Formats: sequence, C-alpha cells, structure tokens
Amino acid sequence: MQTAKQMKQFMEPQSVALIGISRYTGEGTFNILENLLSYGYQGKIYPVNPNASEILGIRTYSSITEVTENVDLAIITTPRSLVPHLVRECSQTNIQSVIVVAQGFTDASDDEGKQLQKEINDIARTSHIRIVGPNTFGTANAFINFSSSFVKIGMEKKPIGVICQTGVFFVGFPELALIGKGIDLGNACDISFAEGLEYFENDPQTKVVVLHIEGMQDTKRFVDTARRTARTKPVVALKTGRSQQAAKAAQSHTGSLIGRNEVWDAALKQSGVIQASDLEEFIDLTRTFSVLPLMQEPRIGVVTISGGLGIVTIDGCQQSGLELGELSANTKKLLDAMSPSWLNISNPVDIWPAMMTSPSVMKPLIDGLNALLSDEHLGAVLFLGATFNEKWSTALCQLLNEAAADHQDKPLACCLWGPCGDKAIRELGDAGKVVGFPTPERAIRALARLKEYSQLRRIL
Amino acid sequence: MQTAKQMKQFMEPQSVALIGISRYTGEGTFNILENLLSYGYQGKIYPVNPNASEILGIRTYSSITEVTENVDLAIITTPRSLVPHLVRECSQTNIQSVIVVAQGFTDASDDEGKQLQKEINDIARTSHIRIVGPNTFGTANAFINFSSSFVKIGMEKKPIGVICQTGVFFVGFPELALIGKGIDLGNACDISFAEGLEYFENDPQTKVVVLHIEGMQDTKRFVDTARRTARTKPVVALKTGRSQQAAKAAQSHTGSLIGRNEVWDAALKQSGVIQASDLEEFIDLTRTFSVLPLMQEPRIGVVTISGGLGIVTIDGCQQSGLELGELSANTKKLLDAMSPSWLNISNPVDIWPAMMTSPSVMKPLIDGLNALLSDEHLGAVLFLGATFNEKWSTALCQLLNEAAADHQDKPLACCLWGPCGDKAIRELGDAGKVVGFPTPERAIRALARLKEYSQLRRIL
Repeated sequence: MQTAKQMKQFMEPQSVALIGISRYTGEGTFNILENLLSYGYQGKIYPVNPNASEILGIRTYSSITEVTENVDLAIITTPRSLVPHLVRECSQTNIQSVIVVAQGFTDASDDEGKQLQKEINDIARTSHIRIVGPNTFGTANAFINFSSSFVKIGMEKKPIGVICQTGVFFVGFPELALIGKGIDLGNACDISFAEGLEYFENDPQTKVVVLHIEGMQDTKRFVDTARRTARTKPVVALKTGRSQQAAKAAQSHTGSLIGRNEVWDAALKQSGVIQASDLEEFIDLTRTFSVLPLMQEPRIGVVTISGGLGIVTIDGCQQSGLELGELSANTKKLLDAMSPSWLNISNPVDIWPAMMTSPSVMKPLIDGLNALLSDEHLGAVLFLGATFNEKWSTALCQLLNEAAADHQDKPLACCLWGPCGDKAIRELGDAGKVVGFPTPERAIRALARLKEYSQLRRIL
Repeated sequence: MQTAKQMKQFMEPQSVALIGISRYTGEGTFNILENLLSYGYQGKIYPVNPNASEILGIRTYSSITEVTENVDLAIITTPRSLVPHLVRECSQTNIQSVIVVAQGFTDASDDEGKQLQKEINDIARTSHIRIVGPNTFGTANAFINFSSSFVKIGMEKKPIGVICQTGVFFVGFPELALIGKGIDLGNACDISFAEGLEYFENDPQTKVVVLHIEGMQDTKRFVDTARRTARTKPVVALKTGRSQQAAKAAQSHTGSLIGRNEVWDAALKQSGVIQASDLEEFIDLTRTFSVLPLMQEPRIGVVTISGGLGIVTIDGCQQSGLELGELSANTKKLLDAMSPSWLNISNPVDIWPAMMTSPSVMKPLIDGLNALLSDEHLGAVLFLGATFNEKWSTALCQLLNEAAADHQDKPLACCLWGPCGDKAIRELGDAGKVVGFPTPERAIRALARLKEYSQLRRIL
C-alpha cells in the first residue's frame, strides 16, 4: 500500500520541488520549471536554487530542507556528484518520492558512477524514500499537465500508460499524438517495472499499458503483475537488447541485466503480454489496442479499392497468422447486386468496379463497408483505400469514422495509401474510432495480435 | 528496335487520342482529358466521342479513323465490350501504341472477359499494334506532365521508373512524393515486364527501377533484361501473390500466372534484383536507392541522441545482416574530447551527453556527424534523432542536408522519431540528399540492402 501511495506521488504529484533547477530559461536551456508553467500544471512548485531568490516569478529556496509545506515529489536535476547529498537531504524531510534525472551512474563506464548509484540505492533501502531513475526523463501525466522531462514534450489525454527505459518515448511516437501517462525508469535503481505496472493496473484512465524493457532485476514479481494486469487490459512489450552486442550496449545504457531471449519470450508469453517484434510494431500495437474493441470472431473481412493491395493483404495474412472469413450469403448478395456481372465476389471484396459503375462513387463503398461490419461471420473489418487528394482523403476519414460509430463492437482498421495517407491516419487517430496504417501488411499484423489477445482474454 | 520506338510512344507520347472519352467533366467523372489539361501536358490531344463536337474547348472526332494527323498513343477508355472493335480501328490507322483501360478481361470471372482479351491479343499479334493493359491506369511521365490515369495523380520529376500491375502505385507512395515515370501493365496481354524494363534500362532520366510483379509469361527474357539493367542501375522488386490464396486472387486480379515462390526468389536473386519482403520495404528501398550513393565499405557508423534507440539499432543490425564498424582512432579522439569523461565512446555513438554539456547544443551533433562521415572505416552513416518540435526538426533537416552535401560519396540516412518526424522525412526527401525513416530498424534494413547491392555491383 505504501508503494501505491508513492506511485501516485510520482504519477499525479500535487506539489513538486525542483532541486538544482537552473536560473537560465529560454530556448536550449531545457528548464523543467519553464516547461511546467507552459503546460499549465496546477500543482504547487518549489524551485530549489541557492543562487537565486526567484525564477520566472516563483520564489526559490536555497535548500529542500527549507521547504516546510508538503511536497509530493522532488526532482533532482543536478550533475551526478551532488545527487547523493541531495537525496539524503530529501530523506531528512517528509518527501517520499524522488526523481533523479542525471546520467553517469551504472550507465557510466567509470567506477564512480557505480559507486554513486549504490549510495542513493542504499538511502532508498534504509529510509522512506523511493527513487525513479537515475538517468531518466522521470514521469509524465497529460491529465494533470505534468511532466518532469527537461525536454518540453507535447501531451494528450490518451488512455495509454507507458513504462520505458529511455526518454525517447516521452517525445511522442510517429503517427500517434503523445502519451497519456508515462514513467521512464532509466537505470531503475529502485522503482521497478512491477511497481509501475501495478499503478497502471489500477488506473482507470489507462486502457492499455506499453512497456519498453531493456532489462530488470525482479522478473518474478513483474510476471505476476503482468499476468494479473493482462486479464483486464492489454499489456504490450518491446524487449530490446536481444542481440549479444545490443545486450552489452544496454548494460552501458541503463546498467540493465538483459537476460536470455528465450527466457524473456517465454515469460512474456506466459504473462499474457503481447510482444512486439520491433519498434514499429510496438507503435502499431499501442495505437491499435488504445482504439479498437476486442474481436468476437477470429476471421476478418476486407474491402479494397485496389485488387493489387488485396493480394498484398492475403500475403500479409499468411505471414501474420490471420485468416479471411467466408462472407455470409446476405453480404454476398448485396455486393453482387452493386457490382458488374463479371466480378466474382469474394473476400477481399474489390469494391472499385462497383464504384466505377455507380452514379455515386462513394455509395458502394459505404454500403460495402456496412455490409461487412454487420456480417456476423467476421470479427473485424479492414478497409484498403487510397488518398488521391485532400478532399477525397477527408471524405474517406469521415466515412470510416461514421461506419465505426455505427458498429462500435466491431474493430475497423484501414490502410490509407497515397500522398495524403499520413495526415489521414493522424486524423483518424485523433477521432479515436478507427486505426489507420500506411500499408496492408502492417494493418494485418496488428489485427493478428488483436485476435490473439481477444482469444487469450477468455482463458487468462 | 521497333519495340523501343513503341515504348517511347507509350512513355513519352507527343500526341494522344482519347477514344471513348466522356463529355462529362468535373469532380467524380475521372476524365482523362481534364486531367491532362490540368497537368499542363504540351502534346497534341485528339478526343474521340461521336456524341460531342468539343470537350473542354477541344475539337472531338467521331472515330479514330477520322484523325489524319500523327498519333503516338491511343487510350481506349470505353467499357470492355467495345474494346476489340476500337483496337481494330486503331490497327487500320498509323497508330502503333494502344492503352486499354477497361477492367473485365482475364481479370473477370466470366468467359466473355477471357474471349475479349484473346481478341485484342490476336489483333496485337497479327498487326503493328502493341497494347498496354487491359485493366490498367496506363502510363505516366512527370517529365512531360503526362498520364493516362483516369484518377488525377500528382507527379514529380523523380529519377524513379515504376513497372506495376496495379494503378495504386500511380497514386504516389506514402513518405514519397510521386513517381517520375510509370507503366501499369495491368493484365499484361501484350507489353511485358521485359519490354518496360528495357525502356528504363536505356532511359537517362531513370536512376532506379522498381517492379510490382504479380506474375508474368516470359520470365526468361525478363531475367536477362533485369540482369543487364542491374549492372548499371538498381532494380527493386516486390513479388506479390506468394501465398496460395493470394495466387488465386492474383489470377482473378490480372489473370497472372504466379509461379512458385522458390523459383521466383532464385530468379530475382540471380538477376541481381533487390527483392523487397513487403510493401513497406519496397517503398523504403525505392526512396533509398533513388537518393543515396553506393557504399564503398560494408560497415556503418551510427550517431544517436538516444542510447535506447541505439540498442534498438543494434538489434536491427543483427536482424538485417548489417554490421557496425570500428571507429578510427581519430574519430574516437574527437568524440572523447567533447563528451563527459564517464562516457565510453563506441559505435553507436551516444552524442546526447556531449550535447548536454556543450555551450552550443547542436555543435557536438554536427562535429560528431562529420567525424563519422569522414571516417574511412565506415561505408555509410545513420543518425538517430528526435523531432521535439517544428523548430528543432527544421534545424535537424538543415544540419543533415549540409552534412550530406559535404560528403556526397558517403550515404547518410536518418531515423527521425517523434511528433514532427513524418514531415521532416518528407522534407529530406524533397531535398534529395538524405533518406529518412521513422524507426531505426527500417533504416538499417534499407542500408543492409544498399550494402548488398553495392557489393553485387562489383561482380555483376
């Protein structure tokens, strides 16, 4: 229970002390205080800097011991050599939660770094203090406009919880507006993956938890927590440092013990964690699981405006372990009626001939999509389209969002090819009903993992 | 030689007849004449429509036989049943090159379609007429603002030659402004991959040739031509219809004979063709080979602002068969001097600690990049960065373009992570010096193929 309270202080601080915050502000100074003010963080802020009386109009303190008010979270931003002393000072106050930002601990090549990390670790072990880091961006929470990141980041209220070992994930993903809540464990000297996961397991604002893991100490507790969490919300993991050379590099990045790949693969599988094969799949799965409902049936239906992309999709299905469903008699009849007589209706449904012979080019598309979304043989629907121009692209997005709103229990994904595809995929992401991909194979890969997790949820 | 002349008529027509062009213009009418005028095509245009005297201010003819001037290329846009008659009419004129746009030939499920294709095929075999299609967007050439596509497409003068069996590739790729020159073979009843390839082999405006293959008849001639072409310019291929179900679908998409995967893989390898594993790699390789020079050394150097992404990169190297080079003593010395003493300099080079301790945040990055680009042990350089905001992103693009301009013989690729990554990758693409990717693994995969082709070129 004590940990739960402290995790709340890390993730939802109502008051923060910025220990060692710089007097310098403006571009290139990476000033956390300036960032917090620009986000509109509403909590109390106590800057600590012995060489200033105020920074950006906020009163500063010469030492953390001078702050008499309650402080949920202290963020130490000094170079490494000052850190043990400052953590010790925190332990002499009521502060229970400390983020250590500096690099150069077990991630350093020298003995001093390892010694410094041991020192702060000892303080955490023997006092009421818990530490996130060192070598970290700290935490972020879009719901309260808070982040300890010294790089100013964009944040949106997404139902995504991120636990990572690099600040890169705070910067935001390509094709995805930014994180909802995040915790960068860095070297993870104290607060662990299991503790981060426990927070997100019980957090009603988090719908999907995503993990970037280099390594960890206590895998047993992690596996137990992950298995429990996966019963109620999807947990996606990217395990990096898989090659021998990468494992060595991870050792000097976050001082992580990497562990054998086979052991990791088995542990994640056993926990019900969805493992991404690379960074791109990690992003795709984060987007997919944060937007789509689970699949009630294992096979999918595809509507395509390009026979060529349809064939690429079938290849993708074979590669990713997903099957195309048989269309129901009703669906076939409806599609037959709108298509030229020479077209053999099958799945993927080539809707282009119908579009070319219809008085309204979009109507066959809308009717075809709705037919597949209503077909009880199909567990999800994938639409393959092309964004010829901005106007066409906007019309497609609207059509897709409307179809998804009308069939909220059936996952709808799309591949939007062409020059305006990127923009359309982002627009769909913002609307939060349909998930978009630039190629059919990526859409299929994500739906295959959605199918697997949907099946798993029934037995976990 | 006759084929070469006709391929020029298909790809660089100075005069075109639009047989069966609609009187209706404006949105949703897919009018080729309207498209041509909007592109600014400067050749002569002869619309043929017996029910109009002019369309968009251009005199129409009631039959192609009425046109007495020289016509390089006829584009037949009627429904399938009228096509044999119209091709026959063309054969009674001086026209030698005909594009048949309509669907419903061997791509149809009925016998009539197969019969119709046999008819036009017979005309091609027994006359001077050559046919592209049917079931095609035809051809496109950005250098003369020409395309027979009924979907209005964007075009840019890129040194890319596309041969495909679906119009989707005319619409433009995600992350890539549009095609330079393209030919959609559709059902490929007459003009073949080998003939398209021969055109691009000898075309000085084409630097890289990319092929989307569902199937073909004359693989022997194709392999011979591809091997010859690959000696002077890279040829990239995506072979689709690999699964049994996809092969069946390809049969009804373009009537293609698919062939066995092992045979195809061997044939492409033997030809020196670079085979893409999926649509995304196909796009990545198209972008990479159209921008980067060949690699003189097989190993690469990496500069990263994120240790975490560095580790992902090493994993990617192992997966794709690419190796990180040993840094030269000079490079190490220079990087050591700018970094904190605790940082162990190795490849990937973590440049972030130097950036955080330098008075100018960008200087270590510029110096580090230039050091690796000048390092003779390294055959190419990959930069891993994050686009924190628009301004930072623009600065990164400028820095990368300048570094590439200063080292034109060494390939420079980058992964630009974060919210402005997509836009930055496009901007770099437009500048045409550096190729950008959203994730490290995709950059590494593309560089691995660049390395393989660079080595192959010495023995082909």
